[in-house]
Amino acid sequence: MSEFIKVVVDAMGGDNAPESNIKGTIDAINEADNVKVILVGLEEEINKELAKYEYNKEQIEVVNATENISCNEPPVMAIRRKKDSSIVVGMKLVKEGKADAFLSAGSTGAVLVGGQLIVGRIKGIDRPPLAPVIPTKKGVSLLLDCGANVDARSNHLLQFAKMGTAYMEGVIGIDKPKVAIVNIGVEEEKGNMLVKETYPLLSNCPDINFVGSIEARDIPNGDVDIIVCEAFVGNVILKLYEGVASTLISEIKKGLTSTFKSKIGALLCKPALKETVKKFDVEKYGGAPMLGLNNLVVKTHGSSTANEIKNAIFQCIQFNEEDIQRKIQDKISNND
Amino acid sequence: MSEFIKVVVDAMGGDNAPESNIKGTIDAINEADNVKVILVGLEEEINKELAKYEYNKEQIEVVNATENISCNEPPVMAIRRKKDSSIVVGMKLVKEGKADAFLSAGSTGAVLVGGQLIVGRIKGIDRPPLAPVIPTKKGVSLLLDCGANVDARSNHLLQFAKMGTAYMEGVIGIDKPKVAIVNIGVEEEKGNMLVKETYPLLSNCPDINFVGSIEARDIPNGDVDIIVCEAFVGNVILKLYEGVASTLISEIKKGLTSTFKSKIGALLCKPALKETVKKFDVEKYGGAPMLGLNNLVVKTHGSSTANEIKNAIFQCIQFNEEDIQRKIQDKISNND
Repeated sequence: MSEFIKVVVDAMGGDNAPESNIKGTIDAINEADNVKVILVGLEEEINKELAKYEYNKEQIEVVNATENISCNEPPVMAIRRKKDSSIVVGMKLVKEGKADAFLSAGSTGAVLVGGQLIVGRIKGIDRPPLAPVIPTKKGVSLLLDCGANVDARSNHLLQFAKMGTAYMEGVIGIDKPKVAIVNIGVEEEKGNMLVKETYPLLSNCPDINFVGSIEARDIPNGDVDIIVCEAFVGNVILKLYEGVASTLISEIKKGLTSTFKSKIGALLCKPALKETVKKFDVEKYGGAPMLGLNNLVVKTHGSSTANEIKNAIFQCIQFNEEDIQRKIQDKISNND
Repeated sequence: MSEFIKVVVDAMGGDNAPESNIKGTIDAINEADNVKVILVGLEEEINKELAKYEYNKEQIEVVNATENISCNEPPVMAIRRKKDSSIVVGMKLVKEGKADAFLSAGSTGAVLVGGQLIVGRIKGIDRPPLAPVIPTKKGVSLLLDCGANVDARSNHLLQFAKMGTAYMEGVIGIDKPKVAIVNIGVEEEKGNMLVKETYPLLSNCPDINFVGSIEARDIPNGDVDIIVCEAFVGNVILKLYEGVASTLISEIKKGLTSTFKSKIGALLCKPALKETVKKFDVEKYGGAPMLGLNNLVVKTHGSSTANEIKNAIFQCIQFNEEDIQRKIQDKISNND
């Protein structure tokens, strides 16, 4: 087969690298015969891991990269200086057309900076947003921007809404996904300056299905598909979602084992509770695409397991098959 | 006793008015003999409710107000036009020195506008923040501003930190309360323009115990006492806290009753779980003070029960006894 979809996997990024990254890669190619994974990182370590598995050699390539960018490094500096890091080497492969997507569980900052500086923006896109999905009662919603592009302007938010629409239609398969803007009330006159400026732009855009404001309280209900906001606010939402959910879950676990009676009860409830807890674990929804770049860049959670790496690789395949890049380009050029 | 602390209670505000408001008032005066409550609202309705109880008549006064401001009314207009509403009449009593505090479970917008326009700001305060406490693993943290003053400047945030410090020291009794600013990373160079401008002001202020940035993920841990942010962000945090906690709790309840086995388990766990759920119910922490006004204004949740009204009245007493107004004034004039 010559028409592989080529996904670069940062073999060295994340808390469980390289083991989980390579296990996830093996699982992905064993399930999908149309993907080729390019593992970038310390060749020796990668090959040592690969030796543990049986797999179709045609579907994996190893590219050596001797440096690593840690999460604590200032990202702009790291991307500029560490030319032989797995992120820089991997992204260059995407930039040069040797691969279709880049996937990393490493430094979010470095991935965001590298995405812009190396992979580059689609013409007409000012700010490529980081767009994770968050769990809701009804499924998931796309939240963008959660990246590092703080202090955005209204036309950036309009672009986020368009890109999010292309993504939710193409990758998640939702027809006319509902778009809302994060606000501190549902009335049109409410909000800060940015929201007040953005609201009419969203209202008047024929390319999206804008339904108005959403208050943070209602986000977990899942009534809208795409939630648009400035990156500082998006980051607060994403992280608070994680924080409140994990704190509450740990407190509930503590409560469940606080008395003898409740301990017995907890044993009986465990399987049923596990499902709920899993559903609201933001970390499990791994792959957040960085939209609006010349090719796909996906950031998975730092603590990604093999299963999450595998799912993120599948996400890259679907992104490519659905030609989301072109759909985003179309949406942006339509109304600019 | 002539030296009563006088608290105005908006008898008509909230979903359970006037019943809960009056029951809460009765419970408060029966427990505290140094408080006098002035109930403002429809005299006839109030007196009908009061007739149900035995109480010391000296501790309750009724002031008639024939209009009501609903939560859906544009607040500025409502405060200007409805001169005979319970909020306007009640706040005027505070303004004129006939009472020490004003308490309402009614329209948040109207309370915030009325606080500024009628009760008035302390000299030197530019923006009086709404400062609710939110539940954490270790107790509570004060979150300010959660009001309607969006697009704040750095010197406003500095004032929030000082006012929050006076409040947490005086009312909650915490020595040198830790202050943090909401940020999207813990490093000093991270953040949006507002945070970057505010950070050094907080660092260099001798009147507060500034400990740096806090990411939204860490808010539920309760490691800091005072969380400072701009009102749009504060509103998002407060409401998302409520939204995620209540959604998760309802999903867990659903999970617990999803199988026969889990139903039995749920019965055994119920008392233990109830404690945890109660602890994380933001709505139960009712009284959010609006700080920096010439007198105290407290907003309790729209769905306030009699117990929450009672607790908010006690909060007003403590605010007065600890002379928080003067302490705020001192902190502000110290470093301006």
